[in-house]
Amino acid sequence: MITRAPASEPDLALGERYEAVRGFTERLCEPLETEDYVVQTMEDVSPAKWHLAHVSWFFETFLLGEHLPGYEPLEEAYAYLFNSYYVQAGERHCRDRRGWISRPTVKEVYRYRRWVDEHMERLLDRARSDLELAERIAPVVEIGLHHEQQHQELLLTDLKHVFSVNPLRPAYLAEAGPRTSSPGPGSEAGARTGGPSGFRGHEAPPLAWHAFEGGLVEIGHSGEGFAYDNEGPRHRAWLEPYRLADRPVTNGEYRAFMEDGGYERAELWLSDGFAVVQENEWSEPFYWERRGGDWWQYTLGGMRPVDPSEPACHLSYYEADAYARWAGARLPTEEEWEAAAREAPIEGNLAESGRFHPAPLAGPAAEAGAPPRALYGDVWEWTRSPYSPYPGYEPPPGALGEYNGKFMSNKYVLRGGSCATSATHIRPTYRNFFPPDATWQFTGLRLARDA
Amino acid sequence: MITRAPASEPDLALGERYEAVRGFTERLCEPLETEDYVVQTMEDVSPAKWHLAHVSWFFETFLLGEHLPGYEPLEEAYAYLFNSYYVQAGERHCRDRRGWISRPTVKEVYRYRRWVDEHMERLLDRARSDLELAERIAPVVEIGLHHEQQHQELLLTDLKHVFSVNPLRPAYLAEAGPRTSSPGPGSEAGARTGGPSGFRGHEAPPLAWHAFEGGLVEIGHSGEGFAYDNEGPRHRAWLEPYRLADRPVTNGEYRAFMEDGGYERAELWLSDGFAVVQENEWSEPFYWERRGGDWWQYTLGGMRPVDPSEPACHLSYYEADAYARWAGARLPTEEEWEAAAREAPIEGNLAESGRFHPAPLAGPAAEAGAPPRALYGDVWEWTRSPYSPYPGYEPPPGALGEYNGKFMSNKYVLRGGSCATSATHIRPTYRNFFPPDATWQFTGLRLARDA
Amino acid sequence: MITRAPASEPDLALGERYEAVRGFTERLCEPLETEDYVVQTMEDVSPAKWHLAHVSWFFETFLLGEHLPGYEPLEEAYAYLFNSYYVQAGERHCRDRRGWISRPTVKEVYRYRRWVDEHMERLLDRARSDLELAERIAPVVEIGLHHEQQHQELLLTDLKHVFSVNPLRPAYLAEAGPRTSSPGPGSEAGARTGGPSGFRGHEAPPLAWHAFEGGLVEIGHSGEGFAYDNEGPRHRAWLEPYRLADRPVTNGEYRAFMEDGGYERAELWLSDGFAVVQENEWSEPFYWERRGGDWWQYTLGGMRPVDPSEPACHLSYYEADAYARWAGARLPTEEEWEAAAREAPIEGNLAESGRFHPAPLAGPAAEAGAPPRALYGDVWEWTRSPYSPYPGYEPPPGALGEYNGKFMSNKYVLRGGSCATSATHIRPTYRNFFPPDATWQFTGLRLARDA
Amino acid sequence: MITRAPASEPDLALGERYEAVRGFTERLCEPLETEDYVVQTMEDVSPAKWHLAHVSWFFETFLLGEHLPGYEPLEEAYAYLFNSYYVQAGERHCRDRRGWISRPTVKEVYRYRRWVDEHMERLLDRARSDLELAERIAPVVEIGLHHEQQHQELLLTDLKHVFSVNPLRPAYLAEAGPRTSSPGPGSEAGARTGGPSGFRGHEAPPLAWHAFEGGLVEIGHSGEGFAYDNEGPRHRAWLEPYRLADRPVTNGEYRAFMEDGGYERAELWLSDGFAVVQENEWSEPFYWERRGGDWWQYTLGGMRPVDPSEPACHLSYYEADAYARWAGARLPTEEEWEAAAREAPIEGNLAESGRFHPAPLAGPAAEAGAPPRALYGDVWEWTRSPYSPYPGYEPPPGALGEYNGKFMSNKYVLRGGSCATSATHIRPTYRNFFPPDATWQFTGLRLARDA
Repeated sequence: MITRAPASEPDLALGERYEAVRGFTERLCEPLETEDYVVQTMEDVSPAKWHLAHVSWFFETFLLGEHLPGYEPLEEAYAYLFNSYYVQAGERHCRDRRGWISRPTVKEVYRYRRWVDEHMERLLDRARSDLELAERIAPVVEIGLHHEQQHQELLLTDLKHVFSVNPLRPAYLAEAGPRTSSPGPGSEAGARTGGPSGFRGHEAPPLAWHAFEGGLVEIGHSGEGFAYDNEGPRHRAWLEPYRLADRPVTNGEYRAFMEDGGYERAELWLSDGFAVVQENEWSEPFYWERRGGDWWQYTLGGMRPVDPSEPACHLSYYEADAYARWAGARLPTEEEWEAAAREAPIEGNLAESGRFHPAPLAGPAAEAGAPPRALYGDVWEWTRSPYSPYPGYEPPPGALGEYNGKFMSNKYVLRGGSCATSATHIRPTYRNFFPPDATWQFTGLRLARDA
Repeated sequence: MITRAPASEPDLALGERYEAVRGFTERLCEPLETEDYVVQTMEDVSPAKWHLAHVSWFFETFLLGEHLPGYEPLEEAYAYLFNSYYVQAGERHCRDRRGWISRPTVKEVYRYRRWVDEHMERLLDRARSDLELAERIAPVVEIGLHHEQQHQELLLTDLKHVFSVNPLRPAYLAEAGPRTSSPGPGSEAGARTGGPSGFRGHEAPPLAWHAFEGGLVEIGHSGEGFAYDNEGPRHRAWLEPYRLADRPVTNGEYRAFMEDGGYERAELWLSDGFAVVQENEWSEPFYWERRGGDWWQYTLGGMRPVDPSEPACHLSYYEADAYARWAGARLPTEEEWEAAAREAPIEGNLAESGRFHPAPLAGPAAEAGAPPRALYGDVWEWTRSPYSPYPGYEPPPGALGEYNGKFMSNKYVLRGGSCATSATHIRPTYRNFFPPDATWQFTGLRLARDA
Repeated sequence: MITRAPASEPDLALGERYEAVRGFTERLCEPLETEDYVVQTMEDVSPAKWHLAHVSWFFETFLLGEHLPGYEPLEEAYAYLFNSYYVQAGERHCRDRRGWISRPTVKEVYRYRRWVDEHMERLLDRARSDLELAERIAPVVEIGLHHEQQHQELLLTDLKHVFSVNPLRPAYLAEAGPRTSSPGPGSEAGARTGGPSGFRGHEAPPLAWHAFEGGLVEIGHSGEGFAYDNEGPRHRAWLEPYRLADRPVTNGEYRAFMEDGGYERAELWLSDGFAVVQENEWSEPFYWERRGGDWWQYTLGGMRPVDPSEPACHLSYYEADAYARWAGARLPTEEEWEAAAREAPIEGNLAESGRFHPAPLAGPAAEAGAPPRALYGDVWEWTRSPYSPYPGYEPPPGALGEYNGKFMSNKYVLRGGSCATSATHIRPTYRNFFPPDATWQFTGLRLARDA
Repeated sequence: MITRAPASEPDLALGERYEAVRGFTERLCEPLETEDYVVQTMEDVSPAKWHLAHVSWFFETFLLGEHLPGYEPLEEAYAYLFNSYYVQAGERHCRDRRGWISRPTVKEVYRYRRWVDEHMERLLDRARSDLELAERIAPVVEIGLHHEQQHQELLLTDLKHVFSVNPLRPAYLAEAGPRTSSPGPGSEAGARTGGPSGFRGHEAPPLAWHAFEGGLVEIGHSGEGFAYDNEGPRHRAWLEPYRLADRPVTNGEYRAFMEDGGYERAELWLSDGFAVVQENEWSEPFYWERRGGDWWQYTLGGMRPVDPSEPACHLSYYEADAYARWAGARLPTEEEWEAAAREAPIEGNLAESGRFHPAPLAGPAAEAGAPPRALYGDVWEWTRSPYSPYPGYEPPPGALGEYNGKFMSNKYVLRGGSCATSATHIRPTYRNFFPPDATWQFTGLRLARDA
């Protein structure tokens, strides 16, 4: 269990944090072969070397180019190749063609990182003796570091996708959580040990519900500590009384939905969602595969049997919503989630554990009325809130203002971070967002009900 | 100006209202040739004869089949052909193939309407002497009538689309609002009379802003009078103080946005919206055409010059949102709109005027602080609220429960009705909804600002 | 059996032939309702009213406009709406949008035909006394009449498609050949009477093979009588000895291919063909449907059981080619077909019979070595010859030069005419052509073998 | 100039030829970085490591698995990953996903090559002392080597595509033919030195025409020496007298076509071809780019100015056909080409030159009636012959029968080899084939005319 020590973080000098975050990115790449850095398997996925370069381009563009006198880019063309979507920062290479680019090589991309790091070191050095400079660059460095942490999570989810579509099903990690020995595809061994449910392992304890009073609550970030622009301004919202499940929905529970014809029953689905189900012939969560009588799933540790006690993962919004309807419940709003999470400790199965897979929800049943647990880590929790600006929200000026605001349509808010989110990156007001059909992220759900 | 006399409506016996609504549908078809009933020009558009039949199928399926003993459908296959999307009411014909169906003929469809009308008359007769029956069917008849009124509006917008794509540009009406004599395409006459703006006619008076206090308001329908399920339950919401423009944005104002490079400036747009602009090469509102130096637009009365004082129309959500950003304002939330509209009279340029086109916003400038006008009619006003369930919302059971709830994703709420909406169909709590790229409806916008 | 009396045809004055051909087009439309004229169900299909207008446009453009002094078109816009593909004759309306056009109405289109007919009458009148004019226009009138005859066939195949996709499966004709009484879809009656083959009726007599010596043959049109440009110039070609089946492949034979896994066995197919099979999930000929234990097919007379003794129809080139490979044979080249057909009488089940469906191949088995029969009518016979220019071919100058030459890629030649081809329109040198995946025409095959 | 010494080749022992061909493949990869082996930029393109593995899989599948007792594949899954299209050899990985596969790594692919080479060596050793085995395997080894030579050419054309879409425009070779120093994109230098034609360099000498008598000729392979199945059987064909240009069409000539509005004039194009031009907005040959006033082109040596005296290259069939029509000529048939080429020496700018780019056609004008030159090498020459089976053609049994026959639709024959074809791989009867819109191969044209 990763627990963030919030007090200590601000103490860490910006330079040390820069090193820590940049170093973590590269540690995540240690298991990779050169070829693994190159591949793009769908438009949402970027090659690992693109991630490595893009996060460096961010520091180069918004800090070195603007604040380090005489700075010369290592290679002019990188500005074009490694801009993601910052229209105001210039032209950029098509997103769906990132996998076409064999050059610069991986080695050259690491050289680019070194170049940026050395110059960032110089800039941060200067800032130590130039308070005005420090004040100007500190918030941008903060954004740059959080930006890189976001890409650390994407790097993992993108690599998972890349490895998973390879018929050889290579593993990124030797282990991703406790692993049962894997029979080959369609192996009889698998079939034999599976129960009628096609599952092996223990179920999680039953759900408990915690009641919240609602009323006029304050939502959003304010005061000290870093937050993205989209987390503010802090504002009031009225909540009717509601209840929240004490834990996320598990694989075991989700399987019951499947066995009850969940994917075939139009009445459980949003109309758009059912169209997606039919068009893509979805009949189980992404990364699940039937092998003999058992359900297996691709993980960063390779193929392993689905554990019924783990939080269900890689669910789209549509699946989360349909499941909730089937269960006689609903998804929480983001305000309900935030009001509940404000007092909870920021701890859980986060990226620092190196597990990169949801952890089983074990232990005895929660007492009635127990407060929610596992709010942080494991899986991002879909809320029923479309991603919209808070009252009074204004994006910052300039290219950095494109960070969040322009994506506020056709997406839903997720809360709480996942097993691939850093403990230093998550907070109660954090608003993640994805389109409702996205499944390649570590996304799951927690049920809510009217009181 | 159409003013609804709300008191008188409930007095009207259900039977008389049935006749009135059904009759209005057919009056709308009077200008049509047989061929005009058949064509489908995009998936969103249905052929006129499909609309005529579908609304009848609704009464047949949810009333005659269930409540009129011994009822026999005129033709079994119609249940399949004329179901739109009610999964629980059985299989249905593909939406995008409605234009492939030459039979039943228009004559046969009218025969079907007669069949349904005669049996509905019998059912309503029975209900006059059977109070229990009356209580059971009255709410369904209400829905059926409102459903038909919705399709009256769709009939008009769909016919507009059908006529507009015909290179002959035929007119549905002899007149749609005051019409300038039309020079041919590219005519010099047009070019000569147009000013540098490419417009003819007077501008509307400047915008005035009306301030609202906000606070804890009640939103949604309750009590007597008909409303759709999605308008409830009535609930509390917290609003920060805000201001609302006294009138919709006009063609003249929208043209200034265009001339300021509105369609080329990515920073004004939602990311999804700019992608739509580029993919579809949008550079002006739907139905606008450049002829010589002038802007013309297709209307149900044929091609006519764009009038700068009319509310801008056929705008997508993305265009409305981009315009508002450019204007230093924003779209209102649906709660802000409803709180403002609750006291306003339900009057305006509605379907009963027979104009079927927005009316010029003439007259002297409003005094500072004047209350909003033209809230009803002319154009549906996009709000910035994604279409989501209200707190505590539950769809009704059965196939009728598919009416609204299942569409609550990837759409935005519009308020206030348009020039194609019946006065007896609109109310302050009415929530219309379309995807953010829809343009074939009579859709425009009103600006809002934080106080 | 329709037999053309070739001697009498040239005797018929051009004016009489004009009347005859134009009149036949309109007789073909007699069974239609107004709505049937409007619909377009795929890009290859044109609405009936488009056909009616387009063939008139041809006379207007290439004859009236050029040769009748003072001719004024009835409606300028028709030149745009009813040009099909003659780039040099001006801009034209998109082919895939012909079904979007409700106006001109059917009545107006007939008025347009009258207009063109009256002016053509005047032009033909003039030509009676102006020999030079007669010489100039005669070949163009000839083309215009043959062009209209081609569209008569398309009119029938397009209407067949339009009616077939309607779930009501309306019939164009009261009868299309002898018809068994039709049980409803999935009816037990059907299942009961069908044998294990899912067929009812007698099989055709077994195939006989006729040997041809080959050698240096002359191919293509020359001398008197009308022919299209693509039928010339007459030239020599060398043929190795070959054999030709005495009759087309039947439904009964094709069913044996299906039952032998024909549609699943990649080794029987061209690579492109198998891709089409898999993409479209083909597993039987177009218009066939399984009902209970029986095979039925849509015909212009409505749904009827598949008759095993009729020539197999609505086969793509890919299916014809795969069938031939399965049968240990091949398709003939167009030169082989023409060399064999040169001496055969032009008689068979052609359009004048009004049957519009292939006729059973009944009677006793042919004697060994019997010459091929049914070369004309019933089904167009796919040849293995890609549609290419003959040696020395030059398209005529001007827009009429676009008639044939520009389509000489990615198509295969078919020979012999079908049950929808007029007897006065077919000849031994006639080269029809369609892409290899086309199935909506009356297309079948005859087997060939090396000697 | 590479001249094949045909006498010596058969003398080379099969083992030595195996080594030579396999070694050449790897030499072609010497300039590559690891990342360059991985990328797939369109469905037609395969990653370099896929080519390396697939040609090895061919030997493994058709030789080692069948003829080397006890052979165990290095890795079972490779049979699935590296089969291209041999349906009868088992399931295979989707062609358009070859770029998704980061593993096996390049190193592992080379290990696979070693594995196959070692076992092939053993098999060839055995065959030295086992004549019956030698006779059985020799023809398959021959096919395997020619198959690998085909993939050598594809390797080069695919790498050219991969490098070309990279905005950095990396070069595969230091030099590809004589190279002018390259100004940057849009450089003024380029604009300044270009003449009005946008070209630099000398024009080729004018075309001369050589007359051929035609008559009854023999076409296709027979007798000794290797040939693919599709080159036989040898058969007779009748040719009318014709003329053939003495050299291919050059860049300078093609530019004149462009400047004469070639890409805008529908009358010059096949209908399918003009549709491709419009859909893809073609207005110059593939790989050409306008820089300032000059035309540049991407070559395997990087960007360089277009040389007017080089054969025009990367033309589709449609462009070749349109050019010929514009030039008042036509493309030759494959029989005309072969009859002309039978006596010509197999020499020219072929792969062994290492130039990998067409060479300028310099020197004095040919004398009138000079025989065609440059028939081999430089560019594959499109013929007007659709790719069809020769009379009497039968594909061989088994999976190797899928090599050629199943592609005989929707393609055109090309003759003569290119600058990327090995001298030991080309011959007068060689039939290459591509779809008419393919441009990424080294494809050009030579004009023909009726005598």
